[in-house]
Amino acid sequence: MSRNSIGKNLVITSFGESHGSFIGAVVDGFPANFTVNLSAIQQQLNRRKPGQSALTTQRAEDDQIQCISGIFEGKSLGSPITFLIANKDQKPEDYQQLKDQFRPGHADLLYQQKYGHRDHRGGGRSSARITAGWVAAGALAQQWLQENHNIQITAWVNQIHHIQAETRITQATEIPSLQAIDASPVRCPDPIAAKQMETAIQQAKTDGNSLGGIIQCYITGVPMGVGEPVFGKLQAQLALYLTNINAVKGISFGEGFQSAHMKGSEHNDAWIARSQANHTTQFGTKTNHAGGIVGGIATGEPIWFQLAFKPTSSIALPQNTVNSAGETVELETTGRHDPCVLPRAVPIVESMSALALMDLILEK
Amino acid sequence: MSRNSIGKNLVITSFGESHGSFIGAVVDGFPANFTVNLSAIQQQLNRRKPGQSALTTQRAEDDQIQCISGIFEGKSLGSPITFLIANKDQKPEDYQQLKDQFRPGHADLLYQQKYGHRDHRGGGRSSARITAGWVAAGALAQQWLQENHNIQITAWVNQIHHIQAETRITQATEIPSLQAIDASPVRCPDPIAAKQMETAIQQAKTDGNSLGGIIQCYITGVPMGVGEPVFGKLQAQLALYLTNINAVKGISFGEGFQSAHMKGSEHNDAWIARSQANHTTQFGTKTNHAGGIVGGIATGEPIWFQLAFKPTSSIALPQNTVNSAGETVELETTGRHDPCVLPRAVPIVESMSALALMDLILEK
Amino acid sequence: MSRNSIGKNLVITSFGESHGSFIGAVVDGFPANFTVNLSAIQQQLNRRKPGQSALTTQRAEDDQIQCISGIFEGKSLGSPITFLIANKDQKPEDYQQLKDQFRPGHADLLYQQKYGHRDHRGGGRSSARITAGWVAAGALAQQWLQENHNIQITAWVNQIHHIQAETRITQATEIPSLQAIDASPVRCPDPIAAKQMETAIQQAKTDGNSLGGIIQCYITGVPMGVGEPVFGKLQAQLALYLTNINAVKGISFGEGFQSAHMKGSEHNDAWIARSQANHTTQFGTKTNHAGGIVGGIATGEPIWFQLAFKPTSSIALPQNTVNSAGETVELETTGRHDPCVLPRAVPIVESMSALALMDLILEK
Amino acid sequence: MSRNSIGKNLVITSFGESHGSFIGAVVDGFPANFTVNLSAIQQQLNRRKPGQSALTTQRAEDDQIQCISGIFEGKSLGSPITFLIANKDQKPEDYQQLKDQFRPGHADLLYQQKYGHRDHRGGGRSSARITAGWVAAGALAQQWLQENHNIQITAWVNQIHHIQAETRITQATEIPSLQAIDASPVRCPDPIAAKQMETAIQQAKTDGNSLGGIIQCYITGVPMGVGEPVFGKLQAQLALYLTNINAVKGISFGEGFQSAHMKGSEHNDAWIARSQANHTTQFGTKTNHAGGIVGGIATGEPIWFQLAFKPTSSIALPQNTVNSAGETVELETTGRHDPCVLPRAVPIVESMSALALMDLILEK
Repeated sequence: MSRNSIGKNLVITSFGESHGSFIGAVVDGFPANFTVNLSAIQQQLNRRKPGQSALTTQRAEDDQIQCISGIFEGKSLGSPITFLIANKDQKPEDYQQLKDQFRPGHADLLYQQKYGHRDHRGGGRSSARITAGWVAAGALAQQWLQENHNIQITAWVNQIHHIQAETRITQATEIPSLQAIDASPVRCPDPIAAKQMETAIQQAKTDGNSLGGIIQCYITGVPMGVGEPVFGKLQAQLALYLTNINAVKGISFGEGFQSAHMKGSEHNDAWIARSQANHTTQFGTKTNHAGGIVGGIATGEPIWFQLAFKPTSSIALPQNTVNSAGETVELETTGRHDPCVLPRAVPIVESMSALALMDLILEK
Repeated sequence: MSRNSIGKNLVITSFGESHGSFIGAVVDGFPANFTVNLSAIQQQLNRRKPGQSALTTQRAEDDQIQCISGIFEGKSLGSPITFLIANKDQKPEDYQQLKDQFRPGHADLLYQQKYGHRDHRGGGRSSARITAGWVAAGALAQQWLQENHNIQITAWVNQIHHIQAETRITQATEIPSLQAIDASPVRCPDPIAAKQMETAIQQAKTDGNSLGGIIQCYITGVPMGVGEPVFGKLQAQLALYLTNINAVKGISFGEGFQSAHMKGSEHNDAWIARSQANHTTQFGTKTNHAGGIVGGIATGEPIWFQLAFKPTSSIALPQNTVNSAGETVELETTGRHDPCVLPRAVPIVESMSALALMDLILEK
Repeated sequence: MSRNSIGKNLVITSFGESHGSFIGAVVDGFPANFTVNLSAIQQQLNRRKPGQSALTTQRAEDDQIQCISGIFEGKSLGSPITFLIANKDQKPEDYQQLKDQFRPGHADLLYQQKYGHRDHRGGGRSSARITAGWVAAGALAQQWLQENHNIQITAWVNQIHHIQAETRITQATEIPSLQAIDASPVRCPDPIAAKQMETAIQQAKTDGNSLGGIIQCYITGVPMGVGEPVFGKLQAQLALYLTNINAVKGISFGEGFQSAHMKGSEHNDAWIARSQANHTTQFGTKTNHAGGIVGGIATGEPIWFQLAFKPTSSIALPQNTVNSAGETVELETTGRHDPCVLPRAVPIVESMSALALMDLILEK
Repeated sequence: MSRNSIGKNLVITSFGESHGSFIGAVVDGFPANFTVNLSAIQQQLNRRKPGQSALTTQRAEDDQIQCISGIFEGKSLGSPITFLIANKDQKPEDYQQLKDQFRPGHADLLYQQKYGHRDHRGGGRSSARITAGWVAAGALAQQWLQENHNIQITAWVNQIHHIQAETRITQATEIPSLQAIDASPVRCPDPIAAKQMETAIQQAKTDGNSLGGIIQCYITGVPMGVGEPVFGKLQAQLALYLTNINAVKGISFGEGFQSAHMKGSEHNDAWIARSQANHTTQFGTKTNHAGGIVGGIATGEPIWFQLAFKPTSSIALPQNTVNSAGETVELETTGRHDPCVLPRAVPIVESMSALALMDLILEK
């Protein structure tokens, strides 16, 4: 039952329920004497918060971050950094129905069975709302990674339902900018696909339905050597952090499932040695089918992976389900619903990637 | 650097190098007073060992297991169970070339850079040989899961290169038997696909090349409730264990990447209540798109997932690479090579799944 | 740097600085569906809080507890329980002097050297004030232990400076009651010694000096079998938790250091079998020199141990020390000081004992 | 049940039963590229092994160490280092009696109750024999600490029964040498006391009885800053490791229990600044009542502590106890017995101290 912390060197402890007074996170192991940019953290939270565009749920939360420990005079103390985010839009009456009826695709029933007692309001602890705390912690890690290693983490929506963006990246310079990604409310840097995705999400909203999709992520600047054999392999660490995100149903690195179709002579990335300005040699690979990770260790090439998201379970269409008495009932949720979580999941993916990486880098 | 243990309640510590005297594993947290079937463990090791068919590497290892602690008079003591497997086929001369030249797709270069000193013989610690210890530990966990919860873990090869088996499972009774899977040396229960896969692997062997593929896994009998929010979610625990397996490049649960193409109304599995013989109600889902996991918790339905394997990096074709001086060289490995690891990876997948599961079940 | 969590099954994460906005603790792994008595937790906090008697520091903190997660409708959810305690008496001006001068016996200098940046106000993270969060967590654990196992944890002040109480306990019924302990502000159940201790502490306060002492603790009701070989032995778990308390300089179990003077024939506690009302046999020991722990495992007899506390480092007498420039300076702190921490440490000892125990019991 | 590993950065996993085929330890997290002196490790094992003098048990074990992983061409690989020590003197018939009768002071009964199945031969897992693996691991850590930080760990027997050595140390140069300590088979550097102790132990052996005592330990060279607030404090880490040693019943740091009798003005160690040859300033303390640790962090001064050992539970005198049926029986063990474990415990104390320290130093 004690699995609300993650990490070995940088330990994140998540707490809070969707409609409790606060959700938050404690970050333990963050190095001392680092100047923290709280407004940059707030900015990542704003990218995750509900109501930021017409495409998302209209729950009214400003998700204002509050830091209650670990930072003094603008700099980290080396002690635990605690973030709080108040839950303001608490309308428990909206959830009266869910006290007894179990929503398909949601964990309501499972929490009831597992714990015998649950906070039914908005899913309680199982709500994706709690990822706000993760984003705060992750945004802090992103700052540290950038400042200390010039590591950039860039995620975007690459597919919504049947619409796929054209974003095949063959070198780091082609990775889209934050501006290009956030130009559209769907966070897809391909403007044509973005427009289609927007329309599709709007339609799903109108239909009371929801859509799945794929988020693509690139990480540059990770030094060769990050990743710990044999059970802290870089891809395993990323998989652990990222598949804990609500609605994620798959992860693949580099060519991923496509590599199943390949031969060794096609997939193997040849090692090369690049001469540096300072007359040293930097090793790397000519191609990067492996996604920047070989044997569980970073090669120094960009790390790239994909995450599959199922369509949100909250839909407004009538659905068959059961109640606590085991009776079949028809559930019709009348509240706000979020037809597609992917745009808001982009900062969550970046945050969890940052936390996974920083934890390994601190081990080196 | 201390990441050679995995698990919280059932802690597996892996040790050994490919051509050291022994590889092995310590299993800590295994319940006392359980009658251990060592020959069943040996059997899983035999499914993993080299040389078992014409399709695999011909390294001559009998992988005979030895248990040196934790079992007394045939029963577990509740103390750490230690398995040793001797490395017999030690031909260090075969590896002289690898002392200085870095094989593409292998971690040789990365180990050299990360640790400054490495055992170059057969990849040393980075070799998939060390999974023999994992299989021993996992086979033990499989026994316990079966005995205590009637949990069955069944993995098979579902795709090799472009050849896909026809094995869409819609209910538990359709899961293939061990006999059907092991009927073919490729461990694919679809006999027609199996034959084609065999031919393809033989051809790859002749060509000095290698092939990727996909392993499918079904787990039945996992009780509703297994899985620990928010960072020990069942799929995350499985992903952690399984993506630590050498050559795995992706994992997907239930519909996985296919769910990206779906709508909520299609993907949501309706909750149902089944009346039991003893007049109690058992909850479950009507469909199982989610792969038996919702909100990170087992629904009681079969768990199913897929693993993508890249083609083995060891190929016999000449390849460009670099040596430790940073010079470009052409590498031509003359030794034995394994054109496709998937058939031998089947017991590894089962073992790591068993370890992941048992660790969570012991938490309940 | 990430050592602000303790426990494996019941994980306590401590956060906060002495003069930040809040200090607190997250309790992860606490079982669901347990009715929490928040006022009983408040009561333990009241026993720890400053200003409760003329003998302690007069810092004005009401230490009102606030629970922001993990409890819903009065019962635990199985999710992390987060306690906050506001720091109200923030007079940073009192600490201006400590920004540059390092107090003897305090960790100010060490924090400065270790972290490069510190919150100098009242010791920041090194202050004993942060134990308020531990007491909240521990008081919760005490409730659970009592409710589920009828475990009683009783600590008291047994020695202050040269004054020793007469409290040799030979059977569980002789353990003093909470009333007897709290009858005196020094929390010593021997009224004659208590009076002398009170006088001694008053004198030390007048003198601007401080006094050390010993706290004695008895725990009854721990079932035979609690304690995990070989590195989670019961005494080691208790030692880990208790020697993390500020000012503790020693711990001894049962006869402790006295056992050095004993022979095996004197120290060995004979095993006995007691017939129970229900015709079963309960094993135990005739004597209890071992303090209720043999081989790291509870025998079922009362657990007893002693903790040595150094005199508080904060004294009002002028002392030689150095400043950050390495110059010798004479330090004279004018603020409030606490001549003896032991009375307030009693609930801290009980709390840490409860957390240590519950963590092991949840493993069983 | 999974508590056979200890450490976060340097993880030691202990395995084996007293009369199984092997006992041993896995050391995970040990840095790569360190030249290992196996014969120095063997030497520490020789100091622990039975039969080294007339004073100890005569079990015939040569305790020859075997390293089966993690070291290649004399240097560490950064992978787990596994040590095996064979159990040769297996006379199970000696232990037939113990299958059913529970020895006072031993954990036989508790293992039987806790696990339901045990290896009764020589205490099985509860035997102090398993500390041989700890000594191997610890001796390796000692090498690393000395090589990298010039840290010296020196333990000796300071008291046996009523005989106390005269070894008050006021500065590091007075710490006795290994030669002085090992000059006597009791490992007490005070030759007069040593002689008396020898006589006392011989007498106890003749009497079939056993003696308790105190081991004193000094550690020099630990850099200022080692120790992790708030739950990885240096004294707590040492207490955790050291109180897991069989027969330890107490630990005290610096003045320890004596500090209970002191005033703040006496106990506080004044901070000083020493000018270094290289014109830098090194902080330290004028006195060292605190034992080199303040606020859980090393001050840079010598660390010193004491450990109380109860008299060995194995005695040859007849004792009352119970059997598994709950009947009172008189137990008379006829086998070899060890009248005083302290001389052999000296290398165990050094080893566990080294492991505790190195784990914290690797965190820095």
